[in-house]
Amino acid sequence: MATAAGDSKQNPGSEEDCAVNNYGTLPLIQSKEKNDRHLVSVRDITEALAKQIIWVRGRLHTSRGKGKQCFLVIRHQFATIQAILAVSENISKQMVKFVASIPKESIIDVEGEVSLAPSPIESCSQKTVELQLKKVFVVSTAEQRLPLQIEDAMRPEESDESMAHVNQDTRLENRVIDLRTPSSQAIYRIEAGVCKLFRDTLDEKGFVEIHTPKIIPAPSEGGANVFQVTYFKTNAYLAQSPQLYKQMAICGDFGKVYTIGAVFRAEDSNTHRHLTEFVGLDIEMAFNYHYHEVLFTIGDLFTQIFKGLEQRFASEIETIRKQFPCEPFEYLDPPLRLEYKDAVVILRENGIEMGDEDDLTTTNEKFLGKLVKAKYHTDFYMLDKYPLSVRPFYTMPDPDNPKYSNSYDMFIRGEEILSGAQRIHEAQLLTERAKHHKINLEQIKSYIDSFRYGCPPHGGGGIGLERVLMLYLGLGNVRKTSMFPRDPKRITP
Amino acid sequence: MATAAGDSKQNPGSEEDCAVNNYGTLPLIQSKEKNDRHLVSVRDITEALAKQIIWVRGRLHTSRGKGKQCFLVIRHQFATIQAILAVSENISKQMVKFVASIPKESIIDVEGEVSLAPSPIESCSQKTVELQLKKVFVVSTAEQRLPLQIEDAMRPEESDESMAHVNQDTRLENRVIDLRTPSSQAIYRIEAGVCKLFRDTLDEKGFVEIHTPKIIPAPSEGGANVFQVTYFKTNAYLAQSPQLYKQMAICGDFGKVYTIGAVFRAEDSNTHRHLTEFVGLDIEMAFNYHYHEVLFTIGDLFTQIFKGLEQRFASEIETIRKQFPCEPFEYLDPPLRLEYKDAVVILRENGIEMGDEDDLTTTNEKFLGKLVKAKYHTDFYMLDKYPLSVRPFYTMPDPDNPKYSNSYDMFIRGEEILSGAQRIHEAQLLTERAKHHKINLEQIKSYIDSFRYGCPPHGGGGIGLERVLMLYLGLGNVRKTSMFPRDPKRITP
Repeated sequence: MATAAGDSKQNPGSEEDCAVNNYGTLPLIQSKEKNDRHLVSVRDITEALAKQIIWVRGRLHTSRGKGKQCFLVIRHQFATIQAILAVSENISKQMVKFVASIPKESIIDVEGEVSLAPSPIESCSQKTVELQLKKVFVVSTAEQRLPLQIEDAMRPEESDESMAHVNQDTRLENRVIDLRTPSSQAIYRIEAGVCKLFRDTLDEKGFVEIHTPKIIPAPSEGGANVFQVTYFKTNAYLAQSPQLYKQMAICGDFGKVYTIGAVFRAEDSNTHRHLTEFVGLDIEMAFNYHYHEVLFTIGDLFTQIFKGLEQRFASEIETIRKQFPCEPFEYLDPPLRLEYKDAVVILRENGIEMGDEDDLTTTNEKFLGKLVKAKYHTDFYMLDKYPLSVRPFYTMPDPDNPKYSNSYDMFIRGEEILSGAQRIHEAQLLTERAKHHKINLEQIKSYIDSFRYGCPPHGGGGIGLERVLMLYLGLGNVRKTSMFPRDPKRITP
Repeated sequence: MATAAGDSKQNPGSEEDCAVNNYGTLPLIQSKEKNDRHLVSVRDITEALAKQIIWVRGRLHTSRGKGKQCFLVIRHQFATIQAILAVSENISKQMVKFVASIPKESIIDVEGEVSLAPSPIESCSQKTVELQLKKVFVVSTAEQRLPLQIEDAMRPEESDESMAHVNQDTRLENRVIDLRTPSSQAIYRIEAGVCKLFRDTLDEKGFVEIHTPKIIPAPSEGGANVFQVTYFKTNAYLAQSPQLYKQMAICGDFGKVYTIGAVFRAEDSNTHRHLTEFVGLDIEMAFNYHYHEVLFTIGDLFTQIFKGLEQRFASEIETIRKQFPCEPFEYLDPPLRLEYKDAVVILRENGIEMGDEDDLTTTNEKFLGKLVKAKYHTDFYMLDKYPLSVRPFYTMPDPDNPKYSNSYDMFIRGEEILSGAQRIHEAQLLTERAKHHKINLEQIKSYIDSFRYGCPPHGGGGIGLERVLMLYLGLGNVRKTSMFPRDPKRITP
């Protein structure tokens, strides 16, 4: 590979080139040879390395030719560093010209000496050092015309309107470029963090991770909103949730279970918060005597997630705030629990007309969130004891008032991110409730039969991962927290 | 709840009952009241608790009435304890009769005094203690007729043929009961362990967890074997792997990624190792100069998984071995890497006729596994440098021999559990290879376009979770390691 300049796309027929071995386009890295060259990561280039000669791989973020010099910014993930190439004994005019012509976003290997920057470089993450380049090789060439500019995609949405901004569809059409912005780099690292905190907190409490099927024989929650799959000579459906299966794991004596996986909703809802496929973080647990044992386990889970994000992802959150400004997130420990009927009272006191058993509209949900925030100073709360009529058939009715149920939603910044309940663990009552909801009993026979052989009381909930993150970060659109979002109008890339 | 006996289904019209408040069937636990009663877990009842009176919840595993006494075994997950109820001042004949009539698998709350067993109780996990019962309440009643008996389902498969055994279909039809056997309890805990070890090992190495869509616009790996989904007014498909998306995450500068999720194969293969839906553990990473950086990262990942299972799940593995005997698992650290051409030589030396570029049949794979085990004493190895013709279009050709490729499979006990490769990271070569494989370029345009804007060399692989566990434990059928398996003939429960 040291002979790579032989393969380079240098200007042919030019004058003799003293730097002929110092630049060029490498042949495709096809693992022809092993190379034990140590590559230093951009983020690790600090003053401690001053005067050292190092190899670095990164993307050409920007470049600016200026006579006999070329100023580059090299980027790797969050980190950027300034690099300078100047004509000298070993660096030819041809080399400077070649480097100045490398398309932005190409991946390059450079050798350079780390030097202290004469003044802080505000435009780079590495502010106190720069690289004096000696060699520059292109590892992977980007096309000259990019469908979007990273610098435009990084710009705060509310900033100077005279500057170019990138709209959502362009971002999604060219997702692999949009994912390279600092905000995207941060969002998906935080998303991984939410999953890790979810699992670590529950593992600690003795939960077992399970995997539930996505292909199911009948709509699991009744009704429409379900995708149909051609399954050999018959039809099947995509699971709207792991509900029935996580409950069956409880019947199977796993006690406390969680599962993370795709769930599917065939709703033709083109809103900021609906996806047709999203990641469900689902929990189910047996309890001893009261479903509040479950409610407060989940409440504490959120507290642990919020604490963990603050502790482990402060710099990622700050990075995102720069592009998408948002109020800091407030929460109470232990979390606030309100009852549905009290929420109705609060709303009525503030001019909303609604019946005791009406479901909350999205508008009222958000308004309630504002009222709760003003009164209790929390962006997260739990709303307990929903009217029975607005909940799924498997929800346990409230023993003290048949109009209500042992069910709850949880909210971040006034939008629902979890729905849960005590479940009915007795086949007879479950059958009655399914009939009441006009569900085809034959289709859910194996589910109902599961409760015929002894089942502990249990409850749980399902969390929408993309919503949690969108609302926690105040991003305003769930497509920003789904790497490759699916909605009624989008199934590509 | 203390008044539960009032609701009990005791024998009406019987003589006066001194124990009327000590037994019965509880009303449905509907969270009417909070109850701070402490329940001791069966596995925690040891000699240290001798003479203490405790409450315990568990399933009625077996019961045997004997005159004025009744011997019960109470089970919770892996743990069982013997309990004795005997007619006395506070325990009536009616109570003994009631308890003796509780159907097996019902969930009961009992109060009892812990006493030392006169001789070790070999049939229970708690061998040195038993419970002298004072109160017995039924929390959830099982039906009298169970579709299978737990004791039959627990029996070693090779054991006494005169005893009842439970066949696979009966187990799967009644999965919630089959899941209660010690083997099932252990299998799914180990499966959770494999996922945890996978993630922890990769998190440690700087990987980022991502989530990729299951609904995709075109068959991702070309050809048939793909399930079709009705997607609003158009059609879509279920992803055969997260391949294209994890590579796009690499294009998006995430560097090292993994994802755990459902993958779908519409193959009409009714074998011991094929499922139509399984859990894929997928890895993709950028490397510097040679794909062996990826190969050995994955090899070490398996070593960490094997070590972790030995350390953390020794007792679960022992539990499973009792029902499903199997040779102990052997592996090398670092793992063995063989080249495909050398494997062909080994097979030919042992009488197999095959061409240099023939794919391995399942039979030859297994035979090779035996030969490798005999020679190298390992049940896990990596087979590198497959013929190009048997690999997917996105596989990087070997730069030194166009008939081979930079690709590998990994094996446990002679069966494939991972397939992987260096990927082509250049749009032009990728297009050529896709054309060669007669793939519709229009359908994978967004994938190929991803490589037009600079992409580092990268590679990865996909692991079938259920296969890893089936083969590691020597269980012989992948349906034993899928909680709710899907195959061409089964989509229920």
